[in-house]
Amino acid sequence: MSAPMFKQVALIGIGLIGSSISHAIRRKGLSARITGHARTAETRAKAVELGLIHSAFETPAEAVKGADLVILCAPVGVCGPIAAEIASSLAPGAIVTDVGSVKAAIVRDVGPHIPKGVHFVPGHPIAGTEQSGPEAGFATLFDNRWCILTPPEGQDPAAVAKLKAFWESLGSNVELMTPAHHDMVLAITSHLPQLIAYNIVGTADDLQAVTNQEVIKFSAGGFRDFTRIAASDPTMWRDVFLNNKEAVLEMLGRFNEDLSMLQRAIRFGDGDALHTFFTRTRAIRRGIVAAGQDTSGEGLYKSRTAAPAADVKK
Amino acid sequence: MSAPMFKQVALIGIGLIGSSISHAIRRKGLSARITGHARTAETRAKAVELGLIHSAFETPAEAVKGADLVILCAPVGVCGPIAAEIASSLAPGAIVTDVGSVKAAIVRDVGPHIPKGVHFVPGHPIAGTEQSGPEAGFATLFDNRWCILTPPEGQDPAAVAKLKAFWESLGSNVELMTPAHHDMVLAITSHLPQLIAYNIVGTADDLQAVTNQEVIKFSAGGFRDFTRIAASDPTMWRDVFLNNKEAVLEMLGRFNEDLSMLQRAIRFGDGDALHTFFTRTRAIRRGIVAAGQDTSGEGLYKSRTAAPAADVKK
Repeated sequence: MSAPMFKQVALIGIGLIGSSISHAIRRKGLSARITGHARTAETRAKAVELGLIHSAFETPAEAVKGADLVILCAPVGVCGPIAAEIASSLAPGAIVTDVGSVKAAIVRDVGPHIPKGVHFVPGHPIAGTEQSGPEAGFATLFDNRWCILTPPEGQDPAAVAKLKAFWESLGSNVELMTPAHHDMVLAITSHLPQLIAYNIVGTADDLQAVTNQEVIKFSAGGFRDFTRIAASDPTMWRDVFLNNKEAVLEMLGRFNEDLSMLQRAIRFGDGDALHTFFTRTRAIRRGIVAAGQDTSGEGLYKSRTAAPAADVKK
Repeated sequence: MSAPMFKQVALIGIGLIGSSISHAIRRKGLSARITGHARTAETRAKAVELGLIHSAFETPAEAVKGADLVILCAPVGVCGPIAAEIASSLAPGAIVTDVGSVKAAIVRDVGPHIPKGVHFVPGHPIAGTEQSGPEAGFATLFDNRWCILTPPEGQDPAAVAKLKAFWESLGSNVELMTPAHHDMVLAITSHLPQLIAYNIVGTADDLQAVTNQEVIKFSAGGFRDFTRIAASDPTMWRDVFLNNKEAVLEMLGRFNEDLSMLQRAIRFGDGDALHTFFTRTRAIRRGIVAAGQDTSGEGLYKSRTAAPAADVKK
């Protein structure tokens, strides 16, 4: 047997993503040891009980001692403070990464705390479910999903290559891009859809003439997909919107312009405009199915079986 | 063996819903004979080849001759003209129903053409997939889904009871309500989500800075659910929006007000407002899972397996 890729991986935060990383690490024997920190004693105890980590620590600084890979699996908003806390405990030559859904803010908040001789390579696995917590994780979460790495310019190529190999061993395909481009791409593919889902579920909840019971009962339509998305972790998503403000507001502005056009077409009964618009949107779906990122299926039951995970995590 | 419920069911339109009704009828032996009409010769030939109908007819009037149940399975916009065409060929005592996603417009457009002695009971099975055409149907599409009937006041109770029993035999749960209430409930649970999905996919398609290839590649987020919904039949949905204009515009107005609030919270960095809103939306999801209309699952792969169909049909 060959030596594992890492001697010690430290997981800072053990929710859906942290626990899934542990499952996927152990599936392939990628680390000799896994240490971890979680904010609450309850989660720390649960993580040890589930075998997710070998040792739990009350502070992130203790958890990262001796680790050659440190993964911040916490909401984006607390990654900066955590980085400040662990800075002096990081081992020389260690790689520090994260799993946050925004990247420019991570570079801004975490980067300055990383000491010389430690390699900082931010990352974002585009995978998740609407579930949260240490019991939500599973080993196949990252299989055939994309993981985006946004290494700062001039970062040690060997460290970037090693983290890339790590994510590939977890089952992912890896792509490199700049933090700013990542944040723009994710604003349209993930953050705006999430905001819209939250919004429409909130609108339904406010209706007086339609009871919540009816909304629930007759939600076989698109609405049910929205409620699943809108059940995601509020803290994680609050931090995403606070930390990717510009890109989300830009996409939201464009979204609103397009929606006004559709609203106007409905109001004036312009069936041709509606039909043309609805026909155009079919092409993107065909592209996704053709790219193997989803299956077409013959019925939804079949297509859903192989459907992908939403970008919702804790 | 007991006699089938109907002697002859006529399907006017043989797309996803029409073909699924045929599969479900034959699964339970609910009709001695199934006749059908489709607009194109190709669909008529395919429907006979697949065994969906015993006889195909070039005109709807021929197809309904001798039928004791006529089901209009065509886009809402053509149901009025079809009703005018079949009126003089309907057998006395027959039941005429439809499967359209709006009901007030069906009552307005179809109702006046139905002769005395024929029972008109509009219906809407809340089930579907994003697939279209006679090959898309399957027998279990309506199992455990709701079907809403909106009988006009004073309609023969025996005819309503018989159609209710028919849908229950197809696998559905049946609920009765007024056309106006149906249209308002569906505006929020189905029509608005559909419009939003079309819109966001269109917005993504227009982006210059993010390539379509990237949108497709990194669409593991909520966006992928939207593309699936937005792949639905453009003609069916054009007719829904043209024929449920008031309720959709009302819901869209409320949606826009709420979205402005979220937009403002993002712009001004109001994390508490975002967190509160995102927490509230979780409750509706819990209600849906508790109502048995969807499963929670431990991971999305599991929850998706039993996920419901979207309200998309042809």
